[in-house]
Amino acid sequence: MGNPDLPIGVFDSGLGGLTVLKALHELLPQENFLYLGDTARLPYGNKSPATILNYLKQNVHFFERTEVKAVVVACNSASSVLSGLGPTSVPVYGVIEPGAQKAKEKSQLGRIGVLGTRATISQRAYVKALHDIDPKLQVFQQACPLLVPLVEEGWDDDPLTNLVIYRYLTQILQSGIDVLILGCTHYPVLKSTFSKVAGPHIQMVDSAEVVAEKVKEDLASGRIPARAHSAKGGVRILTTDRNETFQQIAQRLMQPYVISSLEQVDITVLEHPASISS
Amino acid sequence: MGNPDLPIGVFDSGLGGLTVLKALHELLPQENFLYLGDTARLPYGNKSPATILNYLKQNVHFFERTEVKAVVVACNSASSVLSGLGPTSVPVYGVIEPGAQKAKEKSQLGRIGVLGTRATISQRAYVKALHDIDPKLQVFQQACPLLVPLVEEGWDDDPLTNLVIYRYLTQILQSGIDVLILGCTHYPVLKSTFSKVAGPHIQMVDSAEVVAEKVKEDLASGRIPARAHSAKGGVRILTTDRNETFQQIAQRLMQPYVISSLEQVDITVLEHPASISS
Repeated sequence: MGNPDLPIGVFDSGLGGLTVLKALHELLPQENFLYLGDTARLPYGNKSPATILNYLKQNVHFFERTEVKAVVVACNSASSVLSGLGPTSVPVYGVIEPGAQKAKEKSQLGRIGVLGTRATISQRAYVKALHDIDPKLQVFQQACPLLVPLVEEGWDDDPLTNLVIYRYLTQILQSGIDVLILGCTHYPVLKSTFSKVAGPHIQMVDSAEVVAEKVKEDLASGRIPARAHSAKGGVRILTTDRNETFQQIAQRLMQPYVISSLEQVDITVLEHPASISS
Repeated sequence: MGNPDLPIGVFDSGLGGLTVLKALHELLPQENFLYLGDTARLPYGNKSPATILNYLKQNVHFFERTEVKAVVVACNSASSVLSGLGPTSVPVYGVIEPGAQKAKEKSQLGRIGVLGTRATISQRAYVKALHDIDPKLQVFQQACPLLVPLVEEGWDDDPLTNLVIYRYLTQILQSGIDVLILGCTHYPVLKSTFSKVAGPHIQMVDSAEVVAEKVKEDLASGRIPARAHSAKGGVRILTTDRNETFQQIAQRLMQPYVISSLEQVDITVLEHPASISS
C-alpha cells in the first residue's frame, strides 16, 4: 500500500485543467494535489495523436518520478489517447470515459449533445467513447472555438458570452437531446450560462465533477490510499512556461480558491528525464 | 540576375498570412507565389524566441532549396526575430518593420495604436520597431485575443464581432492616437469594421498591404527580378498539417480569389533538410 500523504497528480496542456483541480480540491479537501500545466507545448489539440501520446507518457512519467499516488489527465486531447499509455505504477484517470459513462446514465432518451474545442469535436473523442458504451446512443456535436478565449479574457459572466453560447447551442438544442456534455476543461466556468440557455430539461455533464467523483470512490474503496478526513490538504501548481497573463487566468479558473504561487519547471525535465536523473 | 519566373515565397505559422498573399496577388497579378503555412507547429506566438528563430530559419531554407526569388515572412511572431536570421540568398521581408515605418509616416501627432494577439503585444514587437525609428513616438497597445477565433469562425461580418471590436477599441481610442496598426495577419479581414468603429480621423496601417507595396517597389527597382506585366501569375499553397476546417478558413481569408487546392508537405522537409536532400 502506498503512502497516503503523496499528492494526486493532475495535468493539462494548459490551465483549463485547473477547473478539474478545483473540483477535486472541493470534494477532497484533505488530499494533497500537484498540478502540472504543460504550457510550453500548448495547445495539444492541433498535434498528431502520436505526439500527444508522447507528451502524455512524458507527463505521467514525470509524476511517477516525483511520486504521486494517482494521476488525473485533466485534458481532453491527452485523455483521447489514454489507451496507448501502457502499464503505470499508479492509477491514471482520463476525463472522456467517465464523462461518457455519466452521460449514458443520465440520458433517458439516448440522445446526447457534446460541446468541445474544434480539435476534440473533429477527432470525435466523445462519440467513440459513447459508442463503446452503447452503439445505439445518438450523439450530436458542436465545436465552440470561441469559448476558451472568452473564458481566458475573463468575459465568462458577460452578455457577449451569453450571445455566443446562444448561437452555439441553437442547432444542437433542436436535435432533441436530454444530456449535454461540457467536453472541455474550460467550460465548467460557463456552466450556469449553459444551464440557463439549455433550460431545465437538459442535464449537464461536467467532466471536472465526474472525474473528481470517480477519484473519491477509488479513495473510499482503497484503490488509492486515502488521507484521514480530518487532514488539511495542500495544492502545488507547476507550469512548463510562463507569461504575465497565466497567473490571472489561473486565478480566475480556481475561484474562489486563491493561488499563492505558480512555479516553473524546466521542460527538459519532461523531455529528457534520463539526462537529469543521472 | 535570378530567374523572374521563380515564385515569391510567403509563409506564416498558419493561414492568417493568406491575407498577405492576397494583397500581394492583388497588387502583382503577374507574379508567381508559393505559400507555406506551418500549421503543424502553430501557433508560434507562445513559443520562445529561440524556437521561433529556429522555425524561421527552417522555413527560409526550405524556400531557398525549392527556389524562390524572395521570401515574405507573413507572420508577426517570426518577423519579430528576423534580425537573427543571418545572410540569405534572396531578399527576406518581415511585416513589422514596414508596418512601423508606414505608421510613422502617416502619423501627424506621433501617437500610434497597435492591435495584435496576446503574444505580439506582450513581446512589444511594434513598440520596439517604432522606437527604433523614432524614440519620441508614443505607442498604445491593445491585445485582442478573440479576433483570430472570430475570423476563423467566419463571423467577421457580424454584429457580435462589432461588439467585440467596440470593446477592444474603447480604451485605445481615448489615448488620442491618429494611426492604428493592425498588427496581426488575420485582421485585414476586419478592416472595414475597424474603420467604422475608429472613425474617419484615424488612419489604418494594414501590414498585408504595406509589405505588398514594399515588394512591388523592389520588383520595380530590380532588387527582385520582375516578370512582364502582361504575364499571368499562379498561386500554390502548401501546409505542414491538414484538418477539415483549414480549406474553409483559407478560402474565407483569400476571398474573392478561389483556392483550388491545398497541398500537404511533410514537416520533416522543414525539420531535417539534410536527411532528404541526400
